[in-house]
Amino acid sequence: MAEQDKAPKRTDVNTLGEFGLIEHLTKSFPLRNPSSLKGIGDDAAVIDNGRFKTVLSTDMLVEGIHFDLMYTPLKHLGYKAVIVNLSDIYAMNARPTQITVSMALSNRFSVEALEEIYEGIRTACDLYKVDLVGGDTTSSPRGLILSVTAVGQGEADKLAYRDGAKVGDVICITGNVGAAYLGLQILEREKQLYLDNPGVQPKLEGHDYLIERQLKPEARRDMIDHFAKAEIVPTAMIDISDGVASELFHICKSSKVGALLEESGVPIHPDAEYQAISFNLDPITCALSGGEDYELLFTIRPEDVDKVKYLPDLYIAGEIVPAEDGVMLNSKGGKLHPLTAQGWSPFNPKNN
Amino acid sequence: MAEQDKAPKRTDVNTLGEFGLIEHLTKSFPLRNPSSLKGIGDDAAVIDNGRFKTVLSTDMLVEGIHFDLMYTPLKHLGYKAVIVNLSDIYAMNARPTQITVSMALSNRFSVEALEEIYEGIRTACDLYKVDLVGGDTTSSPRGLILSVTAVGQGEADKLAYRDGAKVGDVICITGNVGAAYLGLQILEREKQLYLDNPGVQPKLEGHDYLIERQLKPEARRDMIDHFAKAEIVPTAMIDISDGVASELFHICKSSKVGALLEESGVPIHPDAEYQAISFNLDPITCALSGGEDYELLFTIRPEDVDKVKYLPDLYIAGEIVPAEDGVMLNSKGGKLHPLTAQGWSPFNPKNN
Repeated sequence: MAEQDKAPKRTDVNTLGEFGLIEHLTKSFPLRNPSSLKGIGDDAAVIDNGRFKTVLSTDMLVEGIHFDLMYTPLKHLGYKAVIVNLSDIYAMNARPTQITVSMALSNRFSVEALEEIYEGIRTACDLYKVDLVGGDTTSSPRGLILSVTAVGQGEADKLAYRDGAKVGDVICITGNVGAAYLGLQILEREKQLYLDNPGVQPKLEGHDYLIERQLKPEARRDMIDHFAKAEIVPTAMIDISDGVASELFHICKSSKVGALLEESGVPIHPDAEYQAISFNLDPITCALSGGEDYELLFTIRPEDVDKVKYLPDLYIAGEIVPAEDGVMLNSKGGKLHPLTAQGWSPFNPKNN
Repeated sequence: MAEQDKAPKRTDVNTLGEFGLIEHLTKSFPLRNPSSLKGIGDDAAVIDNGRFKTVLSTDMLVEGIHFDLMYTPLKHLGYKAVIVNLSDIYAMNARPTQITVSMALSNRFSVEALEEIYEGIRTACDLYKVDLVGGDTTSSPRGLILSVTAVGQGEADKLAYRDGAKVGDVICITGNVGAAYLGLQILEREKQLYLDNPGVQPKLEGHDYLIERQLKPEARRDMIDHFAKAEIVPTAMIDISDGVASELFHICKSSKVGALLEESGVPIHPDAEYQAISFNLDPITCALSGGEDYELLFTIRPEDVDKVKYLPDLYIAGEIVPAEDGVMLNSKGGKLHPLTAQGWSPFNPKNN
C-alpha cells in the first residue's frame, strides 16, 4: 500500500557505515538560522545566544543493541543514558545544564522498573547538577529505548570543536581506555555461562573496576574545571565513545591533519591489561578500538603542555602531523603502523 | 542476574495512565539551575538566555504504536515527526529554530528508505525554516523509532504557558478537530480489507482531506504570526495532539480553573462530520477525543476577543469558569455534560 514497497533500489545501510550514512542523509540540509553556529559533525550542536552559546547533544540507547538487561541493572542504565550525553557536552568544553529523557517501553516493564531507571537518571542529575526538564514516555511493541538530549552552556571563545587541531599540537587522553570494553567481555562471558547452565552463579568478583567502567561510566567534568583553572582551551576535543582510534580519525578528518599516536602514551589500566591478556586479546587493540570509556581525547598547543602535564589523570599520547603523513601508531617497539578507525567494525559489538 | 529480577512488587504501567506515570516518575526532580525557567508539565521546557528564552520539546514516534508503515509513506513519517515537535514550540508562542533527529532502525530498512524519511524531514525544515543540527542513527533489533527534539526561541514576556488561564478568559480553537482521527479510521479499515484480501486495492479516493490530516499534519505557525501582528499573548495555550478534551483538562489543571466548552463552537470539518456519521460515530466525540490534529487550543482575555474574532480559521469555543464549576460541555441541545479527558483511553488507538 505504501510508497516504500515500490522502491526499485535497495542499498543495505551497513554498506555506508554509521558516519557515512549520517553524512549521506544529512548533506543537503543547509543551516539557515543565524543562531545555528554548528550543525551535524561534532559532539554537539552549537546555538548562538549572545556571549554564552547553547550546546545541544542527543543519544539513543536501544535494548539489544546498546545494553542487555540480563546484566544491566536498570538504575545503571538510567545513569549511563544521562552520562553519555553529558560527556558530549563536556567534549565541547561546555557545561550541561538541562536534559530531556524520552522512553519507549513494552508492557513487560512495571512502574517499579521505571522507578529504578529514573532513580539512575536522578542520581546522574544530582551528581552533575543538571535539570530534567522534559521528555516523552510512550509504549513500544517490544524492548526498551531511551533517548536523551542534553543542553549545555559554553563561552563563545572557549568551545572546543573537532576541527581546530593544528600540526604540532599535542594529543592528550584522560583516564584510561579499553576497560569498558573488557568489562563488557566479562559480562558477556558470564551471561553465556549462565544461559548454558542457569544453576551457575556468575563470577564477577575481582572484576569490579572493569564492570563498573562498562555499566556505570562517568563523564569528565573535572577536566573542564581543570581547563578553566589552567586557562587552556583545547584546540580540538572529542569524547571517547567509539574508541580512541575512531575518535582520533574524526579529529583528523575535521581538522584536515594527520596524527602520530604513541603506543606508550595510551593509558591502559592494569586490570584491563591483565584481562585483555587472559582473553588472548592485545591490550593496545582493546584500548584503541574498544568503546564506551567516555574519556576525553583532545589536542593542545605545544606551549600549553606545561599547563597540563601535572594535571591528574591526563596523558600525553602523541602529536598532530600534516595530513599527508596519515594517522599512525608508533608502537612500543618503535615501528610505525597505520591506524584504522573502528567506528562500525565487527570488532566492537556495541558499535552503532 | 540483574537487580530488576528481584523486584518484589509489580505495578502495571497502565494503572497510572500516561500523565500520572510521568508525574510519578519525575516528581522528585528539583530544578537547580537558575536557567531552568520551566521544566516538565508544559508543551516545552523554557531555558533562560536573557531577553530571549530557549524553548525545548521532544517527542518519540514508535512503529506499531504511533505509525503503521503499511499505510504511512516514509516521507510523510519524517515530515510528521518534525511537525509534532514544531507544534509544541508554537504552542509556547515561540518559534522553532533547530531540531535534532535520532533514529533506531532494523536492517530491513534500506538506505533508500532512510533517504525517503530524510526527504520528509528536509521538506518540513524547508517549509518551517528550521535547521537540522544533530542526532543519532543506530540499529534496532526490530522496528523503527524516531525521536525528535525541537529548539525554539521566544520573548520572555510573550511565552504562553498552560497555567495562565483566568476565570472569564475566552477559549479558542484553531482550524478544525477530529479529522486526523477519522483519517486514521479510514486507513485502518482499508488496511484490514487489504489484509483480508490482498488482491483488493484500497479505496482512499474522496477521503483526501481526512487522510492528509492524519498522514501529513501541519503546525500552526500562522497563528503565532497572527498573535504578533494583533499584539495579543494567549493567557494559556496547548497544541491539540491528544484531543481537545484532554488538552482542555491540562490547561484547567495547570491554571486551577474550570471550563465551559460550547459544542457549537468546536470546529468540525464537513468531511469529518460526514465520515463520523458513516462510521456510526458521534462527530463531537471524534472532535473532542480524537487526537493528532495539531491545532492550537488557547485562552485569551475577554478584552482581546475583538482582536482575534476576524482572524481566519479561529473559533471561539467557550469560557474559563471557576474550578468548582468543573470542565463541562454545553451541548447544541443546551444540556450540560461533564467532559472526560481521553488522554490514555481505549477510545483512541493512537493515544499517549
